[in-house]
Order: sequence, then structure tokens, then C-alpha cells
Amino acid sequence: MHDKHPNKSWKAKLHRIIYEADTPNGRLFDVILLIAIIASIIFVMLESIKSFDARYHNFLDIAEWIITIVFTIEYILRIIAVKKPFKYIFSFYGIVDFLSTIPKYISLIFIGTQVFIALRALRLLRVFRILKLARYLGASNMLANSLKASRPKILVFLFAVFIVSIIFGTLMYLVEGEASGFTSIPVSVYWCIVTLTTVGFGDITPVTPFGQFIASFIMILGYGIIAVPTGIVSAEYVQQNKGRSTGVPTPPAVDLNTESCPNCSAERHKDHAKYCYNCGHSLSDYS
Amino acid sequence: MHDKHPNKSWKAKLHRIIYEADTPNGRLFDVILLIAIIASIIFVMLESIKSFDARYHNFLDIAEWIITIVFTIEYILRIIAVKKPFKYIFSFYGIVDFLSTIPKYISLIFIGTQVFIALRALRLLRVFRILKLARYLGASNMLANSLKASRPKILVFLFAVFIVSIIFGTLMYLVEGEASGFTSIPVSVYWCIVTLTTVGFGDITPVTPFGQFIASFIMILGYGIIAVPTGIVSAEYVQQNKGRSTGVPTPPAVDLNTESCPNCSAERHKDHAKYCYNCGHSLSDYS
Amino acid sequence: MHDKHPNKSWKAKLHRIIYEADTPNGRLFDVILLIAIIASIIFVMLESIKSFDARYHNFLDIAEWIITIVFTIEYILRIIAVKKPFKYIFSFYGIVDFLSTIPKYISLIFIGTQVFIALRALRLLRVFRILKLARYLGASNMLANSLKASRPKILVFLFAVFIVSIIFGTLMYLVEGEASGFTSIPVSVYWCIVTLTTVGFGDITPVTPFGQFIASFIMILGYGIIAVPTGIVSAEYVQQNKGRSTGVPTPPAVDLNTESCPNCSAERHKDHAKYCYNCGHSLSDYS
Amino acid sequence: MHDKHPNKSWKAKLHRIIYEADTPNGRLFDVILLIAIIASIIFVMLESIKSFDARYHNFLDIAEWIITIVFTIEYILRIIAVKKPFKYIFSFYGIVDFLSTIPKYISLIFIGTQVFIALRALRLLRVFRILKLARYLGASNMLANSLKASRPKILVFLFAVFIVSIIFGTLMYLVEGEASGFTSIPVSVYWCIVTLTTVGFGDITPVTPFGQFIASFIMILGYGIIAVPTGIVSAEYVQQNKGRSTGVPTPPAVDLNTESCPNCSAERHKDHAKYCYNCGHSLSDYS
Repeated sequence: MHDKHPNKSWKAKLHRIIYEADTPNGRLFDVILLIAIIASIIFVMLESIKSFDARYHNFLDIAEWIITIVFTIEYILRIIAVKKPFKYIFSFYGIVDFLSTIPKYISLIFIGTQVFIALRALRLLRVFRILKLARYLGASNMLANSLKASRPKILVFLFAVFIVSIIFGTLMYLVEGEASGFTSIPVSVYWCIVTLTTVGFGDITPVTPFGQFIASFIMILGYGIIAVPTGIVSAEYVQQNKGRSTGVPTPPAVDLNTESCPNCSAERHKDHAKYCYNCGHSLSDYS
Repeated sequence: MHDKHPNKSWKAKLHRIIYEADTPNGRLFDVILLIAIIASIIFVMLESIKSFDARYHNFLDIAEWIITIVFTIEYILRIIAVKKPFKYIFSFYGIVDFLSTIPKYISLIFIGTQVFIALRALRLLRVFRILKLARYLGASNMLANSLKASRPKILVFLFAVFIVSIIFGTLMYLVEGEASGFTSIPVSVYWCIVTLTTVGFGDITPVTPFGQFIASFIMILGYGIIAVPTGIVSAEYVQQNKGRSTGVPTPPAVDLNTESCPNCSAERHKDHAKYCYNCGHSLSDYS
Repeated sequence: MHDKHPNKSWKAKLHRIIYEADTPNGRLFDVILLIAIIASIIFVMLESIKSFDARYHNFLDIAEWIITIVFTIEYILRIIAVKKPFKYIFSFYGIVDFLSTIPKYISLIFIGTQVFIALRALRLLRVFRILKLARYLGASNMLANSLKASRPKILVFLFAVFIVSIIFGTLMYLVEGEASGFTSIPVSVYWCIVTLTTVGFGDITPVTPFGQFIASFIMILGYGIIAVPTGIVSAEYVQQNKGRSTGVPTPPAVDLNTESCPNCSAERHKDHAKYCYNCGHSLSDYS
Repeated sequence: MHDKHPNKSWKAKLHRIIYEADTPNGRLFDVILLIAIIASIIFVMLESIKSFDARYHNFLDIAEWIITIVFTIEYILRIIAVKKPFKYIFSFYGIVDFLSTIPKYISLIFIGTQVFIALRALRLLRVFRILKLARYLGASNMLANSLKASRPKILVFLFAVFIVSIIFGTLMYLVEGEASGFTSIPVSVYWCIVTLTTVGFGDITPVTPFGQFIASFIMILGYGIIAVPTGIVSAEYVQQNKGRSTGVPTPPAVDLNTESCPNCSAERHKDHAKYCYNCGHSLSDYS
């Protein structure tokens, strides 16, 4: 008991620095991490440009090592700081943090060998580091709530879009045929999605009068049904906005309370909350 | 009378399995059917890919026979289970179910002969099996109601889009002429719809300065008037959402009551309803 | 006075047939006119297809004469039927009706001579006959009101779109230059409108990294600001829908009262209205 | 004191002419300026068309000098007319007004030398004169307020779009590779933004089945999430429209009060306001 207290307070301090942003050290930790994330993404993108990679290969390699070490330290610190490390490790952010560190280590295995595809896939993995940014987006509760509330309706809508695409895609395959680029039903369905969503690449276009007529119909349909998800989400927002129309002061759109439960790491606590809304643990007791 | 009772209860059980999903057998029936539908669509799509069809032709042929037999059994069972078979046969789902079974049988007639176009059209027919899925979408009453309520306004809107397309299409035909690909008024109108709906394939594009000026105007018009159907549907949804703003618990967005009237097969009954809202028949009397 | 009465009632009857649709003759008149308008538009479109025109030139010529005569009779009858012919002649529909008749007559002047451009322009004029259909759209008061109410805001929005297009168009002209197809500022502004409205033809596309970066920004801007007109119109509709939320029976979305004032030809009277809302004239007094 | 009064009233008159539009002279000043702005933009655009510039180079040069002199006079008058010239000079409009005058003067320096790129950049600068028009747009308070109120949410949304684009762009780079035009991750991300925003140029398109499948997913995602900013802005407008639903007369959508504070030049005062809402200075005291 005697021994544990200093350790406890050390752990509590660490937890505060890593999971919260209301101390100078905590803010510094966040800023360093943000820079590392953004730099990492920029380097991954630059590395994919052949002419750039050829000239600055060594610089990119060293930078990648530094970033990997930063993320490794962050990952270890996060595991130490939380009370239930396994809960963190298998959480969404735990997996993202882990995946952010390993690519460079694994790449050591392939040194000498020339497994290009595996290396390319590893490079891809590094891009998922951008998901670390999601932690700082936390906010936007209202946005997430609106989307969550209208999700079943949007899914039904997207499913309907899919059925329409398959039927009209098959129809276009029959009408236009392979000469116009509608080489198979999957390709036709792809074209139909391109058209219905009003993207319209133009890599495949109908050339027969009847095909153009059906295409016109699909386009007007797509132009009209885009109103459906918009209407759903609009109504949901209007609904959520209701509370604000009754003189109640508007809550900040972006929630900046970065406090986090020392027990379960739940975030988005109310300001001045004393106990975790999720597990009931005291927010100030880092034991 | 003595003879009929066991038959009645047998029919009632069958009706329950086929038309409802609240018994284990009923759920199994639905799952088998869902797999058959989705597999069928995937096979139709794969068959259209020449390289795939060349290699796995026999497999696809056998799979199609199995699926056809499954749908045939389903069709016969549905006819037996309902009290008024003719009502089912000539209903939307009755026709879809029938069309789902025949293509393979008809294809037997063409064996030996080489009526390719007819065979392609038959292949097309099979894709309509996807409409069988609509039965499981049943839900989304609110979505359907909103669209139904705003339909006349959306039709007026689409009609206006059509008039605008014809006038500007003709104008572009006059201004750009055949050199730029505006070979006839129908093609010009097709281009105008492509542009107004913001699809923009790029297969035909204006090249003269005046043509580009008119095109810019059409695009900004299209960009502006997309607000109209969206506004209509949004307002309709806000309207339908009103009932929910008064503390009344929100009804589930997707209605999962799969009960169906043994007399008229009407669906979407209220939970615990005792009589069909459509024909007044007792929902538990399968006589 | 003795002489005038039969004439008066004859005129009243004619007015009823032409301007209203609540008598069998009136409905017949409307149906014939609708068929003539739609047939006329179809013939104009078919005439522009060279291969079709070459084969059926005589048929199209005769059909055009018949339609021209029908519209001429309609035009004369309308002038006779209204009390103030000049008001009709210089009204929107009066001009449309006049322009629907003259092209074929003027074409007689050019017989023998070969003024192709003039003839093409005349062909164009005939397409405006489609505006005659607007008379039957009459309805959609709510739609028109919403648009009218939000017009100033939409104009400000479109003007902002235009300023953005000019500035970014010039920027792209500087960045991409003529090599990528941005040959002049007007062309660049045209490209910018194509991109901002999410049409995206692809006839001109940025190829330099910086150009693609600016293009990405323009696209995300366009994707975001489409919300503005939609929001404006949605709010306007929600506003207009308010009256319907208070248990008041919903008025029909499409107003089918085709009664028309015998004095000033104003339309959209309330059902059972006795006096014109516009000029106060009795709706049943055709004197 | 004796000397200052006539000067004061002279300055007050000048202020009135330049900053307000409620006197004949003020209106004349505005009209001349509007013509100069629009003419200037048109000339810059025409100058970029090589064939036009070659033929009318001298005319464009003289026109540019006249416009530059008009804007120079305007700039000097504005400095004289306000009480705190430095505040004006470093304000948004002060900088725009300054940048509108200098390009032609600087171009004198480059005469003889052939610094084409600098000259092109100067030509670009002139286009920003269009921002002078923003002064006359002043209006649209409601539009600006709605956008301002929903800005944090829209930024979160745009940020999410950016994260999605980077992840899917990298995925497409891995799947499609350089053969299909996905030459690097930045190019892939550019393509992903083109697709997600439903622009769809078609300069780069997926060709592998799996690439087309991912592309379909991105398109449907883009088609669905366009609802989010629209919903946000719609809800904001509905909110702002609330005040209008309670019988209160609707304020004019475009605010035409062009009065401007003689002290701090703040605009958009209420009609009949006597004191500046910004600095409290009397609106009629030009001392």
C-alpha cells in the first residue's frame, strides 16, 4: 500500500497527459502526435510518387523510422496508463494504434527478399494512421446522432438503389451489348451506379438511341431520388434542432471536454462530471 | 367436415411457414429463399462474363436448375397455402414469383436451335428475381409514405425538367451543330439531360464559345433546381416527423411484423392485431 | 340587343370549350390540342435525324401542315372567345400560340431559295410549342410559391457561384496553362462551372499536381455549397407546409379547376367562385 | 473651427456619395463603378483569348488604363472620405481596392523586359476586382448567418470526406496500380475526391473488376453523404425561418440600406438608425 501510492499518482499523471488535453504536457503530447500523424500521411503519399521516392528514399526511410518509434512509445504509454490494458488493446483505437506501429517492423523481415506486393500492402496499412485523427474529431455528437437515427432508412434507400442498378444494368447490357462497352452484367451494373449517382465518368456511354433513352431515364431517376437521403437527414436534423428553438442556450457544436475515464477510458463526459457515465468509476480516482 | 379439419390445420401451418417469419420453420424457409435469390442474381451476373461462362458453363447450368426447382416449389407452395390462389397469382409478387421460375423451362424449347437473342432476353428475365427481395424490405413505410405524398409535386418537377431539356437541347443542336456531336435533336436532348442532372459523361461536349456559355447556364440551372425535389421531400419528412417530437416513443423505422392475412395475404398488420385491416378476416382463422 | 344575345351565348359556349375542361367538348378540345402538341414535338425531333428525314420527308411535311392548321384554328378561336383579344395576344400564352403557327407559313417564303440557317432557326421555333403544355401544368402553386419566395436568396447564391467560378477559373488558367486545355480565361471559367456544379464532363482536366489540388478544393467546395440552395428551398417548403400541420385537410397538390375568367382570362379560381379574383367580373357572365 | 466647417460638410457630402446610394450622385457613382468593374472583368477575359488579343491589343491597353484611372480616383476618394483612413486601407475592401489599381502601374516597370510569368500573374490579380462586387451583395444576412452557424459541423463533415478520400485513394492505388492511371497516392486521392463529390471527370477510371467494385462503393457513399451538409444547412434555415412563422411580417431578403458609418464605415445599419451599432458614433455627424 505504501509502495503503490506513488506509482498510482505517477500512473494518474500519465493518464492525464495522454488521454486529456487540459494540462500543458497533455497539450504538448497531443500536438506532437498530431504532427507525427500528418507528417506520416504526407510521407506515405510522397513515397508513392516514383520521382520523389527515387531522390529522397533515404530521407523517407529515416523519417518513417522516427515516426514509427514515436507511435511505438505512444502505444506503450497508452497501455501502461489505462487500468484495463486489454480493453484498450482490443478497442477500435487500440487496433488502429497497433497497426500504426507494425508496418516498419514487419518490413525488416522482407529485407533482402523482394516481396513487392507485401511491401505495397504494408505501405497501404500505414495510411490507416489517419484514423488516429478520429480521436480528435470526437466532437460532432449531433452529426453522429442524426446519422445513427436515420441509418435504417438510409440503408433501405441504398438497398433500393442497388436493386434499381442491377435491373437497369441488366437492361442496358441487353440493349447496348458489348460493342458499346457493356461487356458483362457486372460492368453494366457498375455503369448504372456511375450514372444513377450522377458521377458520370464517361468511360462507358450508351450509343444506341434506345440505350440513350434508358440512360436519360436512369439519370432523371438518380437526380430525383437523391432527394430521399437528403430529406431523411434534413428531417432528422430539424428534429434534433428542436431543443434549441425554445430559448435554451445552444450547446457548443464541437465538444471539447477531453476528459477520459481512468477505468474504462470512456470519453465525452459532461464538464464537471465526477463519475464516469459508462462504468460509474470516479473520474478523479486513478487507482 | 370431419375430413377437412386436419387439412385446414395443415394449410394453416404451411401458410404460417411461408408467409410469416415467427416460427423456426418459417425463418428457415425465408433464409433458404434469400440464399437462393442472391445466389441466382450472382450466377446470372457471372454467366454474362464470357471468360467465366466458358470455364464454368456446366456448373452454372446445374446451379440454375437447382435454383429454378427451389423457386418452382416455392411458387406451388404459395398457391396451395393461400385461400384465394388467383388473387396471389395475379398480384405483383405472384407475377414476380412466376417469372422467376419459367426462364429455364422455356430455354428447353430452344435447345438445338440457336435463338441467341431470345436466350439473352430470358437471361434478363431472371434478374427480375431480385424483386423477390422487395418482400423482405416491406418496411420503410415512412419512406414510402413521404414519396407517395410528394409524388404529384415531384412529377410536375420532372415534367418541367423534361420541357427545359427539350428547349435547351434544340438550342444546343442549333448552336453547336453536328460537328460537335450534337447530331440530332434527340441526341441533343439526351446531352441536355446528362448535363442538367449533373451526370456529365463527356461523350458529347460543346466546343463553340456560345455553346459553352449555354452549357454553363444549363449546369448552374441543374445545380440550382436539384434543390426543388430535395426541398419537397425534406418538407414531407419534417411533416411526418412531427408526431415524434411530442414525447411519443419513436416507432421502429423498420417494421418487422411479418404476419400476413390467411384470406387476402395483406401484410403489415399491427402487432397483436386480431383481424385483417384489409378484409376483416380473422388473422388466426386459416379456414 | 336582340341580335347580340345569341352571339353572346355562342361566344360564352366557345369560351367554355376553349378555356375550361369541365364540359365534354372542352375536354375533347384539350385532348386534341395535347395530341397535336406532343405529335408536333416528336415530329420536330424526328425531322432532325437525317436518315429519318430522308425517308419520310413528305410525311413529315404533310403532318407539319396539319398541325400548323390545327394551331392556327386554335389561335383564331382563342382570339374570338376572349373579350379583350389584345390582352390575350400580347400575353405569354398568346405569343407562344402565335409562334406555334407561323414557322410553316414563313417557310413558304423561302421555297426555291436555299436559306438553310433561317430554316433551321424556324425548326427551332417550333420546339417552343412545348410551352403550350405549361397551360396544363397550371397547378403546382406551392412549388411556384416556394421558388418565388426563395428567389432573391437563390439569385445571391448563384451570383456567388459565378464570382467563385471567375476567380478559380483564372487561377486554373494561370496554373495549368494552355497545354492542359485551359486555353483562355473564358474556357477556364467554363471548366470551373463544370466542376463546381459536379457535372464534370472531363473534356478538360487538370494534369499538374497543383492544378489537381486546386481542382480537388473546387470540387469539395461545390459538393458543400450545393447544400445552400437546397437548404433555402427546404426551409421554404417546411414553412409552406406549416398550415397543413394543424389538422386542416390538405389541399390537392395539383389544382384541377380549369375555370377561366371570361373577361380577363385569369385562371386558378377557387371552386364555386362566382367572381374573378383578378378583375371582379362575374365568372358566369360572358357578355 | 471657422475653416473646418465647410471642409467638414464637403467631406460629409463626399462620404455620402461614395458610401451610400440614397442620393442621385451616390447612385451615379455606384453605377459608374459597377460598369467599370464588369467591363474590367470582361476585358481581362477577352485579353486571355489569343486571337482577340492579337487583333484588339491597343484597344484593350487603352481600356485598361481608363479603368485603372477610374479605380485610382475611387481609391483616393475613399481614403479622403473616411475619418480613419488606415482602418479602411487595411480592411478587406481597402486591400481589394488597392490591388485593383496597381497591376497596370507595375506593368510599366516590366516594359522592355519580357517577364511573361510576372505579367500573367498581374493579369490574374486584376480578376480579383470582381470582389469589389461583394460590396453590392452586402445583403443576404440570413444566408451568411446560416452558413456561419453550421460552419463547425460543415468543417467536421469536410474533414471526414478528406479522411475517407485518403483511405480509399490509397486502396485504389493498391488495387488498380499505375496501369489504369492511378500513378501515385496523391493522384489516387484526387481521383477519389472527383468520384466522391460525384464530379466524375473520367480522365482516370478503374478497369479491374475489384477496382470498379470499390469505385461503386465510393460513389454510393458520396451519393449518400451529400445528404449530410444539406441536412445541416436545411435545419439551420428552418431554424432561422422560425421567427417568420408567427405572423411577424417577413423582412426583405435583401437588405438595401446602404447607409454607412462616417466614423468606422460599418454597414448594414437598421433603417432610421441614428447611431452606429458598431462604434456608437452618430450616423449623421460627419465631423
